[in-house]
Amino acid sequence: MKNSIKYNPSKINAGRFFEDFIMNEVIQHATPRTITAGDCALYIALTGERNPLHCSEPFAQSLGYKTTPVDDLLAFHIAFGKTVPDISVNAVANLGYADVRFIRPVYIGDTLSTSSQVIGLRQNSSGKNGIVYVRSTTVNQHNEPVLSWVRWVMVHKRDLNRVAPMTIVPTLPSFVALDNLSVPTFISAKKIDKKELFTKNSGGQYFWEDYQIGERINHAAGMTINPADHTLATRLYQNNARLHFDDFAMKSSPFGQRLVYGGVVISLCRSLSYEGLENALSILAINAGTHANPSFAGDTIYTVTEVMDVWTLPNHPDMGALRLRMVGIKNMSPDNLDKIKSETGYHADVVLDLDYTVAMPRRGN
Amino acid sequence: MKNSIKYNPSKINAGRFFEDFIMNEVIQHATPRTITAGDCALYIALTGERNPLHCSEPFAQSLGYKTTPVDDLLAFHIAFGKTVPDISVNAVANLGYADVRFIRPVYIGDTLSTSSQVIGLRQNSSGKNGIVYVRSTTVNQHNEPVLSWVRWVMVHKRDLNRVAPMTIVPTLPSFVALDNLSVPTFISAKKIDKKELFTKNSGGQYFWEDYQIGERINHAAGMTINPADHTLATRLYQNNARLHFDDFAMKSSPFGQRLVYGGVVISLCRSLSYEGLENALSILAINAGTHANPSFAGDTIYTVTEVMDVWTLPNHPDMGALRLRMVGIKNMSPDNLDKIKSETGYHADVVLDLDYTVAMPRRGN
Amino acid sequence: MKNSIKYNPSKINAGRFFEDFIMNEVIQHATPRTITAGDCALYIALTGERNPLHCSEPFAQSLGYKTTPVDDLLAFHIAFGKTVPDISVNAVANLGYADVRFIRPVYIGDTLSTSSQVIGLRQNSSGKNGIVYVRSTTVNQHNEPVLSWVRWVMVHKRDLNRVAPMTIVPTLPSFVALDNLSVPTFISAKKIDKKELFTKNSGGQYFWEDYQIGERINHAAGMTINPADHTLATRLYQNNARLHFDDFAMKSSPFGQRLVYGGVVISLCRSLSYEGLENALSILAINAGTHANPSFAGDTIYTVTEVMDVWTLPNHPDMGALRLRMVGIKNMSPDNLDKIKSETGYHADVVLDLDYTVAMPRRGN
Repeated sequence: MKNSIKYNPSKINAGRFFEDFIMNEVIQHATPRTITAGDCALYIALTGERNPLHCSEPFAQSLGYKTTPVDDLLAFHIAFGKTVPDISVNAVANLGYADVRFIRPVYIGDTLSTSSQVIGLRQNSSGKNGIVYVRSTTVNQHNEPVLSWVRWVMVHKRDLNRVAPMTIVPTLPSFVALDNLSVPTFISAKKIDKKELFTKNSGGQYFWEDYQIGERINHAAGMTINPADHTLATRLYQNNARLHFDDFAMKSSPFGQRLVYGGVVISLCRSLSYEGLENALSILAINAGTHANPSFAGDTIYTVTEVMDVWTLPNHPDMGALRLRMVGIKNMSPDNLDKIKSETGYHADVVLDLDYTVAMPRRGN
Repeated sequence: MKNSIKYNPSKINAGRFFEDFIMNEVIQHATPRTITAGDCALYIALTGERNPLHCSEPFAQSLGYKTTPVDDLLAFHIAFGKTVPDISVNAVANLGYADVRFIRPVYIGDTLSTSSQVIGLRQNSSGKNGIVYVRSTTVNQHNEPVLSWVRWVMVHKRDLNRVAPMTIVPTLPSFVALDNLSVPTFISAKKIDKKELFTKNSGGQYFWEDYQIGERINHAAGMTINPADHTLATRLYQNNARLHFDDFAMKSSPFGQRLVYGGVVISLCRSLSYEGLENALSILAINAGTHANPSFAGDTIYTVTEVMDVWTLPNHPDMGALRLRMVGIKNMSPDNLDKIKSETGYHADVVLDLDYTVAMPRRGN
Repeated sequence: MKNSIKYNPSKINAGRFFEDFIMNEVIQHATPRTITAGDCALYIALTGERNPLHCSEPFAQSLGYKTTPVDDLLAFHIAFGKTVPDISVNAVANLGYADVRFIRPVYIGDTLSTSSQVIGLRQNSSGKNGIVYVRSTTVNQHNEPVLSWVRWVMVHKRDLNRVAPMTIVPTLPSFVALDNLSVPTFISAKKIDKKELFTKNSGGQYFWEDYQIGERINHAAGMTINPADHTLATRLYQNNARLHFDDFAMKSSPFGQRLVYGGVVISLCRSLSYEGLENALSILAINAGTHANPSFAGDTIYTVTEVMDVWTLPNHPDMGALRLRMVGIKNMSPDNLDKIKSETGYHADVVLDLDYTVAMPRRGN
């Protein structure tokens, strides 16, 4: 054994900088992940989820699923976490995501692998950074796509002298259109007394017909985020972005402390909005999302839902879709939230503004 | 999409008030729950349980179980949590429970559904609230009862002008009698060298014959409750009572902070009392229980056990039953606890007074 | 039921004191433990582990494993926890461990049982305590050894008048020699394009040939330990040493608070050192380990790795071994750590100094 110790920073992957992204390049993200019953139990413990589609095997099977499908957001967070080391480790900011499609159910035992293709590049006028657009796709062990989404991040340049790439900005849909929603054809509740089946399982009495465009639901329950809650969740998703974990380093950041991963807030809001949306089944799409303000341990999260649109689903006479706006707020009752957004931007207590689409059984079939 | 947003509180289920409970009515509680290996691992992580009946498949099978049965209290907390939205969401107080019977083992993969029948009603003289008595029954996916219990809660009236219902107060047993204890007939340790089997698995050397009525055991270990411990557990049980989760709202309550769910304290005490009761097998009954004082995050829980009664079990010559009083105290050594209860009520540091019955192998068979 | 309550301390096992250990005695530790998918998911959530060998079933199978093997350290912590009630409950200090061998993979569903043989005894000159050396062995449900290690602890005497036993101090290897490393023969990556297989799964591009003796890697990521993180982990391992759990009692100890179990720190460091060692497979041995300073909740842990030795592995042309020194530090960047140890002892911020050996694929085969 030698005595001389040489520091070798080269073994640590510094991640891609703006000039390292090449248009159309496909990046295969590492550490595929087999999802287990343990992940699903932890997801319940971390979020308080009660959706019977993800908690009751007989209920899931009565709808046509072979067994309990994994919660859509659990699968999404795990899939998303894989992209962090390659895409956003040097990000200045996560600017947004769009066109998030939930293509196939994920089951316990499935192994998810994610890759991303660079679909847009735009260097900023400062020359110090640029925006990278990627479409990420997650496949299961049979190489079938289960998730697909676009996100764009602002990334530092390392070498400011590198010439800017050709600017290409992809055209993104403002929401996932009906034609692009994947509702498994095997799912059917046609032959079943739907009202009875759902109400006794979900506890909810409202169906697709009962939701009206423009309706707002103030979900009453609030949930305080403990330091261990959000770090356990973020580690479970294997999202290793350091600002969620390293309190020592974050103490000298402008935030003064660890930030809660935005996906944790999305899952909390989805769980808190169960009351009022009890019969909603799987998430079909996330159309857009903004983390309007940061969340920290100690914050209590509440949720408001607005119904943005209602659609029938072709080939699914027993089911419709609801396009919903899910707004997360902190340390403030939903009843006190008047304007979510004003001319000067988001209300200071709004932490999440998410536009998503769920499947909802129809009453009359 | 319309612009006008209408607040629709009607989508939020406000829960039953006193006048909404009808004598003999059966309420089917929502969100059936499939129990997984993930739930059981989390239960170990949350409580420190070491009972080999629930931690070692070969040990469970050597006793005749088809596989490791789920911990009795984990099943109970999950079953109990389902009743909260329908029974106790508007409760002034949980007054007590009785006649809790553990009827059949619950295994991983079982799906539990719970219903409650109203078995008693008594409006209070103030006319502002009343006491509701319910018998709750939990069945597995084969519709076989696995758990049954009575509890009574004081519930607000919404409409003070509603006439009081006829007063009916059920007669409840002070403890679950021997005839009503369900010890699976397939369990037998007759042919096995019991002492060796148990001591090497449980680490304990005391059997049914070694426990005497009136004996007190001061369990030495203490466990401090972290904020995330009790909220993770309560979410795992899908008990959504808000006072355990919403620190922002609880700050303006008399408690000034979130309350620990009583079931969390019961499980901690049961786990802390492992040393001294190592060979106890399944819980056969909870005879009565009182949460004498509230627990908060930061409290350190200790446990004292008193032996209340010892019974032989018909048809089980290899096993007896012990009726135990499990007393939970906080921030105080069991050695310093003199009087659990005085004329003025419980000692201020007593948080739990639980009367329960366990199966215990007999030495001499 | 009798009224008189007798305190019976005898039911509580006080554990072995120095004079209770007998040379060559074999102690069978209680509470065998079946490891489940829930344990593995919790381990990911508690440590942030991303090693695809333990997270991806297809990757594990592509190497020849029948399914995903349980993380080596998870198995070790569970096995180790079993020895605490018998070996170290009356310990003054855990002095060290050596010759830790990982003999066979542990799979989900395996049940681990541990026994320890007393292999050395040395009463201290004070006559008040002595050092006990034990070799612990863990077997699975087929009675096949999966783990074996030596540790030595200083234990109080209860009866100071008891004569000292004959002093026997075992000869311990400074590291586990190549001949004693167990690399399963069924593991092979010969036929596979190794670089591609590993890099796309692990995200790492460095192989056995790339590591040089004397090289130091400063792992960039840090992880703050929350109170619930370390207590959840230690309960999961069923390690019931009270100083990790009982904050009320620890407030009057010199530490003033609960101590973090050393195994928690080992796992955190191993997980934090993933970046830079991505392609490392299973742990083959722990050669020696010292918990140089205590860790507390709130500490942020960072890790430095030094390459101590590189070995080829006989019969495994596709794989080599790396002997590594993993140094855990707290609340201090690895870049600022100059001298790990000086003449006066360890740097005050060093919490772990662990010497271990991993299998690492070779590039050229």
